[in-house]
Amino acid sequence: MTHIGIDILGGDWAPEAALSGSLSALNLLGENTILHFIGPQNLVQQHLDEQHPALAKKAVIHPTDDFVEMGENPVKALQKKPQASINIGCALMAKGVLNGFASAGNSGALMVAAMHFLKPINGVSRPCVVSAFPQKNEHKNVLVDVGINADAKPEMLVQFAKLGQLYSHHVLGVKSPRVALLNTGAEPSKGSLLYQKTHELLTDAKDITFVGNLEARDFYDGVSDVTVCDGFTGNVVLKQAEGFYNLLKHQNIEDPFIEKFNYEEYGGTPILGVNGNVILGHGISSSKAICNMILATEKVAKANLALHINKAFNK
Amino acid sequence: MTHIGIDILGGDWAPEAALSGSLSALNLLGENTILHFIGPQNLVQQHLDEQHPALAKKAVIHPTDDFVEMGENPVKALQKKPQASINIGCALMAKGVLNGFASAGNSGALMVAAMHFLKPINGVSRPCVVSAFPQKNEHKNVLVDVGINADAKPEMLVQFAKLGQLYSHHVLGVKSPRVALLNTGAEPSKGSLLYQKTHELLTDAKDITFVGNLEARDFYDGVSDVTVCDGFTGNVVLKQAEGFYNLLKHQNIEDPFIEKFNYEEYGGTPILGVNGNVILGHGISSSKAICNMILATEKVAKANLALHINKAFNK
Repeated sequence: MTHIGIDILGGDWAPEAALSGSLSALNLLGENTILHFIGPQNLVQQHLDEQHPALAKKAVIHPTDDFVEMGENPVKALQKKPQASINIGCALMAKGVLNGFASAGNSGALMVAAMHFLKPINGVSRPCVVSAFPQKNEHKNVLVDVGINADAKPEMLVQFAKLGQLYSHHVLGVKSPRVALLNTGAEPSKGSLLYQKTHELLTDAKDITFVGNLEARDFYDGVSDVTVCDGFTGNVVLKQAEGFYNLLKHQNIEDPFIEKFNYEEYGGTPILGVNGNVILGHGISSSKAICNMILATEKVAKANLALHINKAFNK
Repeated sequence: MTHIGIDILGGDWAPEAALSGSLSALNLLGENTILHFIGPQNLVQQHLDEQHPALAKKAVIHPTDDFVEMGENPVKALQKKPQASINIGCALMAKGVLNGFASAGNSGALMVAAMHFLKPINGVSRPCVVSAFPQKNEHKNVLVDVGINADAKPEMLVQFAKLGQLYSHHVLGVKSPRVALLNTGAEPSKGSLLYQKTHELLTDAKDITFVGNLEARDFYDGVSDVTVCDGFTGNVVLKQAEGFYNLLKHQNIEDPFIEKFNYEEYGGTPILGVNGNVILGHGISSSKAICNMILATEKVAKANLALHINKAFNK
């Protein structure tokens, strides 16, 4: 059985969006998957009662009314709110009740809770977050890190490469992921000192299929499976793509391929490098986004990504 | 009279694209503008002879067959090739023959030549390059730096803000440009140490209308006139926009607003902070791109941007 937890109190439109997205997901999750609702008992129960009994059987409720506010200090939230939905979710993961946990709540608080309850994987100096971008050739290009480590070091970027590779291989099914370094030009001497040094380290790394620097203009061309950068640059790339998508909506441009850039389709951003499969959702997550995030969490949990990362870093 | 120089030997498709773009520009430049062709005498003369005599009168040729190769070392090119088109162009600017100079050639070599012949403006610690991005509300958002300073310091970013402001005001006609800091979130504590410190300095700067942090997802929303970042991040943003535009072309999506993202429409990237109006074009510049770059150079030269920057930094 696969047990997925969802934070019903996380996100700007919680609990409504989280609840309705979770109920949609119940219909789509695998037969052997159980969905754990972490949120208000009565409200969840009432909605589950409206479901077909066969579906409601696939649900478990972990009752709580407490949650971390969006602007709240993550460390204080961990200390003062043990019953906040995010803290309950991560604690349930640590106890082995859940195989995966997703939340669209306070991202800092989710990160702090994941580090506290699940601990970083031995050998991983800094956990990071990834996002898989659509490509012209229908492949996916996994960008890592897209937000946690704004001040990164070359050795950290090499670890991001390894983590991204494991995600691409175990979750997206790419046999031998090609790793590129996001940069301002093809030559090894391009970019900041951080990127020059990282280029050197990636060239020498034995367990990485390094294909060299990748300029952002070629980022969607399907020439790499994993693209490495610091968390500041990655966050800018992720959000610029969102801004561009919004620009197209503003122009009333509709296109099935471009629709893949809709954040609602992403299914959230996995945190790599902690002992557990934790997925971070967009704060503005709609019902559809929550549903896709739960399905993505099931995929990561079934692949047991955290276990594979642990093995790879501790062989 | 306004005198604009164009490098006929610069760019991947030189001399054909540069020549044909220059001839198109001749038709469009103001009555009191003279276009200086820096390139092969016979070839240019032959093409000018095919023009209407009234147009050919607006042209001057500075003959040379030498140029800097795209992959050539910029410093060596300056030392060993005094007759390379880029070096001639910058030298003509320094002598006061030209009011503006544009090249789609080796960008490093153009930068080195501009620094050598024109010198940085007193008080500007690091010249930078800017690009004006289309906005939902038809305004322009000037991103600075988009490529030179991959390793930037907070004080440099504050200067980029001032330089961007002067560009927005004098060239784009924005009365009181609003300056934002590109970042990963709205709070002052967001981003890398570089961005945290820059936020502090911009908040305290008296001559800057600082409107706070801007996330990349809001970059096209017309909420700032100038957006400041380091040259690595800016280059990634510029090239990602180009990548996204290419993606839309690949999907056969046509839209007049989106067409503004076509690099051919940009008109090149002005170098700010040297004593002269120098515009850097895209290496792959087509005839149309060259034509627009020349028109943009005329605009910058007529505004006499370099002079305004000099005044602002030395009052």
